[in-house]
Amino acid sequence: MPEATTVRDVTITPTHGGVTAPAGFRSAALHCGIKTKANALDLTVIVADKAASAAGLFTTNLAQAAPVLVSKQHLVHTGGIARAIVVNSGCANACTGDQGMRDATQMASDVATALSCDPAQVLVASTGVIGVNLKIDRISSGIRSAVASLARGKGSETAQAIMTTDPFPKEYAVTVQTPRGSFTVGGTAKGSGMIEPNMATMLGFLTTDASVSPALLDRALRESGRDTFNAITVDGECSTNDSLFALASGASGVAVDDELYPALVEAFLAVSRELALGIVRGGEGATKLISIEVRDACSIDDARQVARTIANSPLVKTAVHGADPNWGRIVAAAGRSGVKFDVQRATVHVGSVLLFENGLPHDDAAPRAAEHLKGKEIQIEVSLGTGGQHSATIWTCDLSAEYVRINGEYRT
Amino acid sequence: MPEATTVRDVTITPTHGGVTAPAGFRSAALHCGIKTKANALDLTVIVADKAASAAGLFTTNLAQAAPVLVSKQHLVHTGGIARAIVVNSGCANACTGDQGMRDATQMASDVATALSCDPAQVLVASTGVIGVNLKIDRISSGIRSAVASLARGKGSETAQAIMTTDPFPKEYAVTVQTPRGSFTVGGTAKGSGMIEPNMATMLGFLTTDASVSPALLDRALRESGRDTFNAITVDGECSTNDSLFALASGASGVAVDDELYPALVEAFLAVSRELALGIVRGGEGATKLISIEVRDACSIDDARQVARTIANSPLVKTAVHGADPNWGRIVAAAGRSGVKFDVQRATVHVGSVLLFENGLPHDDAAPRAAEHLKGKEIQIEVSLGTGGQHSATIWTCDLSAEYVRINGEYRT
Repeated sequence: MPEATTVRDVTITPTHGGVTAPAGFRSAALHCGIKTKANALDLTVIVADKAASAAGLFTTNLAQAAPVLVSKQHLVHTGGIARAIVVNSGCANACTGDQGMRDATQMASDVATALSCDPAQVLVASTGVIGVNLKIDRISSGIRSAVASLARGKGSETAQAIMTTDPFPKEYAVTVQTPRGSFTVGGTAKGSGMIEPNMATMLGFLTTDASVSPALLDRALRESGRDTFNAITVDGECSTNDSLFALASGASGVAVDDELYPALVEAFLAVSRELALGIVRGGEGATKLISIEVRDACSIDDARQVARTIANSPLVKTAVHGADPNWGRIVAAAGRSGVKFDVQRATVHVGSVLLFENGLPHDDAAPRAAEHLKGKEIQIEVSLGTGGQHSATIWTCDLSAEYVRINGEYRT
Repeated sequence: MPEATTVRDVTITPTHGGVTAPAGFRSAALHCGIKTKANALDLTVIVADKAASAAGLFTTNLAQAAPVLVSKQHLVHTGGIARAIVVNSGCANACTGDQGMRDATQMASDVATALSCDPAQVLVASTGVIGVNLKIDRISSGIRSAVASLARGKGSETAQAIMTTDPFPKEYAVTVQTPRGSFTVGGTAKGSGMIEPNMATMLGFLTTDASVSPALLDRALRESGRDTFNAITVDGECSTNDSLFALASGASGVAVDDELYPALVEAFLAVSRELALGIVRGGEGATKLISIEVRDACSIDDARQVARTIANSPLVKTAVHGADPNWGRIVAAAGRSGVKFDVQRATVHVGSVLLFENGLPHDDAAPRAAEHLKGKEIQIEVSLGTGGQHSATIWTCDLSAEYVRINGEYRT
């Protein structure tokens, strides 16, 4: 496990579990029959014992799935209060017209009936194939069974139930020790293909037992999401369904005010970074995690744009896959990114090895860079040579023949 | 061969040959030793018998190779006059610093010495690996041999000598019958990976025996390039070396003025479209040519942006590769393209099959669309549903495991 982080009298330490690690949350997961594989978990509910503060971040795609539209409405209607999140995998309920909206609304109603709460206090998420209607009867009866079996120790089943092409479940939690007491932040996420900054086919759920106002929770979610879930890309695709939710139960008794806000953000960052990197590590066909840091940019946006261009370059991704220290493809990607770039002053490092400087390669260093590229965790660092002060990091994975196989055969 | 095109008393008919089909041009090609494979053609010169009008379009990448910088200087210096184009394959002479500039200049000087002309009247292009210096001695002695063996019938050798990972050579020519006499336009092009709109790792050379002023030639090249060479993408990459040159010898005696200008553009379009589509058909790992037409956009730029986003979507490209009528990926790509898009009014056709309308799929039509996708030439048509009047077409190829193999093993 990573080491503890300290933020001004606050200590953040990894702990076990995921969304049910914080007090005040229970979950359940089961196979209701959306996925065709027998017994594959495909439905989960995450429930706060009492009404919790809630916040959401959603896909920027203009084609938004029904659960995204319904969850957005619910957050606006309640002003950021929720009792539960209901999620199915295997069907995205996207491009499903009016019936899709009725089905997403029904999912919220079913949970609300079982919990005796306002349906607007239920958030909905779906992931899977686009353009297929939900088998809503199976979902409804599944929701009744799930709510009847809620328990605190079932976070890891929730992590499994939201998976589609993910090769492994992703969950993480930290405890936050403050001068005013401890609270816990937990989370789970899924996503493998269609992953790109600004929300992709990605679902993420964070919970905390801190007491946080809806407004502060929303701010913490946006701030921590920017450099974690929104800083990863698998294939440059941004999906119809991406949703990141946070719920705060307050069950720890620790109230997050302006003073404790940095600690909350730091904890959200710790959990979100671990989950986001898990998504990239489990990217479709991925064999390597690549971090791309761009330095000396004129703005953070510039740095991000170059890092994303490199991260989404199929030539860079295939070169890393083949452990080829092909800095030329990195320079070419930076040069076409649309951002100020001085090839004569730029530098490229792969691992700690300087490969390009003063407009020229260091070919004698290539074998050492190739060694680094044979590992599982790859660092690429580019200075734009423009004398700017800003930097940004984007994480991605390599592009393998397996990605092509998965996506050429996904539906057929 | 495609049929003849008629433009107001002008008939354009395909003919045999490539860059030496028009009168007044000769070429030669040989193996000088840049490519390691024995006898692989890697050097060619295209020579106009007398000083010709010349124009060039270049990569928009900020990392520009030495031959691009030298050719741009030469075109500015001469005001658009050239005697020859010299091209090597196997080495891009990009990111090669001062030595690279000296080598590119040397290539022009060597040709100029052999032809007894001003070195500024020689245009230079290179393609191949980035960051490796040219073996300039081999090039220089190759240039002397090549100029000594210039002939009219060697256009197809030129087409072969500019290839890198291209699976086949690309050349094309048309004769243009006008009320004032006939002229011919010929051309050749190369490119396979790093292909994306706005000039990629692509070289293209057009010749004509029409008499055209440098200014009008430049205009015709820009106008025809926009919807041909700049409307293709293999992998979204834009290279350091892209160059498209046109030379006009005037040897036909037909002078292109404002009246004949549309005929020249139409002939440039005919040759350029054939060559550009050849590049996509021969894209790295490509098994299918995909045309993506976007309609009902608010501007041509909007239409192009959506078409490019779809064309560069790895999920769309892998779906086409697997003959999967996955319209959902097309809708998702359109939705994330940053352009106005109304998912409720949008439509998606694959071939002539309507797959998506009123926010809903036509799943019963999927088998017919899958049949179309099993072919070699795929049509995708998207209406954005925004009531706009503009449309654009971008051509691309599918993404196969072979692309990953080629690019994961290119240098190693």
